[in-house]
Amino acid sequence: MKSPAANLIHIILVRPENMANVGAVARAMKNTGFEKLRVVGLSPFSPEAFRLAVHAEEILKKATFYPDVAKAVGDLQVVFASTAKRRKNFTLISLEEAIKKIVKLPPGVKIGLLFGPERTGLESHDLEWANHCFVIPQASRQPSYNLAGAVLLTLFLLFKEIRSAEGLSFLSFSSSEEAPLPVAQQKECLRLIMEKLRASGFIHLTNKKHVEERLHDLFGRLQLTEKDRKLLLALFSEIPYHF
Amino acid sequence: MKSPAANLIHIILVRPENMANVGAVARAMKNTGFEKLRVVGLSPFSPEAFRLAVHAEEILKKATFYPDVAKAVGDLQVVFASTAKRRKNFTLISLEEAIKKIVKLPPGVKIGLLFGPERTGLESHDLEWANHCFVIPQASRQPSYNLAGAVLLTLFLLFKEIRSAEGLSFLSFSSSEEAPLPVAQQKECLRLIMEKLRASGFIHLTNKKHVEERLHDLFGRLQLTEKDRKLLLALFSEIPYHF
Repeated sequence: MKSPAANLIHIILVRPENMANVGAVARAMKNTGFEKLRVVGLSPFSPEAFRLAVHAEEILKKATFYPDVAKAVGDLQVVFASTAKRRKNFTLISLEEAIKKIVKLPPGVKIGLLFGPERTGLESHDLEWANHCFVIPQASRQPSYNLAGAVLLTLFLLFKEIRSAEGLSFLSFSSSEEAPLPVAQQKECLRLIMEKLRASGFIHLTNKKHVEERLHDLFGRLQLTEKDRKLLLALFSEIPYHF
Repeated sequence: MKSPAANLIHIILVRPENMANVGAVARAMKNTGFEKLRVVGLSPFSPEAFRLAVHAEEILKKATFYPDVAKAVGDLQVVFASTAKRRKNFTLISLEEAIKKIVKLPPGVKIGLLFGPERTGLESHDLEWANHCFVIPQASRQPSYNLAGAVLLTLFLLFKEIRSAEGLSFLSFSSSEEAPLPVAQQKECLRLIMEKLRASGFIHLTNKKHVEERLHDLFGRLQLTEKDRKLLLALFSEIPYHF
């Protein structure tokens, strides 16, 4: 029942606080057929994590650890971040829209699903590494979904979509589409652009946070390809250093 | 965001073993807009349950307790039981099929969702009280979904379906359809029929378990209405006491 596409999907827990949740995430991954777990800002797992990871100990054993989100997602091509809160400068899509985007990606694209800490969720500087931010719909404002619950819902819907796409070669619906660059290269392109914009005076001290976050949001959603990068760098090289 | 239809849906935990799961179920209910919780074979809740029921303590406080499944579902009209195991004598439908059935029910029908104990799941004698048994699809045979996870997935998909049906007056798609009898009356009708079948010799010592479970399955799926009952009792009154 395991889909090769499932191997392209990486679940990334950012600074998780509760080891029982980490174990429950591993179990949810096993339930739904995913096995690539990355963890930011924590290592190693405690016995409590293994206790909850019923029949899914292997996923914990193979998990990889990173000091920050940048390193954890750098080699991936499209990153989706889960958030429960409204974010002023970031566009939010629903879980279902995120799933639709994933299924439409070209074959072989490496995908990251980013989940934040239990109490605070992801910080804005974490979201800057995502191409898309998604929200899982809920009936009441509070509480948010539990961390393991949010991962379970996301993976289950993805698993359901993969299964229903079986025979349709999942993740290859639009094979004419060019694959996005690794996220590290997408962000390097944006960094060059922002450098330019700071030099030109477009980004300045008082609007910096707002504008930079909006740019991360905008360029993130583009899922930059090699062609996009060439075009954008060419485009921005046109901007004079002072408007 | 709360739908009046959500008030018709009762989540029934049968002999839950782990209070953390009970609390997580309450949180999942709050997340997805459901509030009617019934519990079989346990009372009261421990502080551990309340600790996990973040912002959902009210659901635990209003929960009602029953000594057995019969009493917990007697007043409901259609009962769906979650099971992870294959069941020889019971027809299994998928979670998605169960959701479709729920949404198609006539307006005002009281619905039960039955979930079993963590380690063993529901027993066959519990399933006899269900109209339909459903399975949540999974990628691997083991482990099964955690109890709170199974409830969360079920309620989330139901919530999603309710939301997408908003404006279409949820639970009233087929208003010409007659509403099922309370489950206690459905089972009383079946009891009369089985009594007849035992007297006739159709059910005997060696086939009893198999045949009775198959009958529970069959008549359960019918969701008997008053009209059905009249017809069936009339029909079975035709059977002679010895074939």
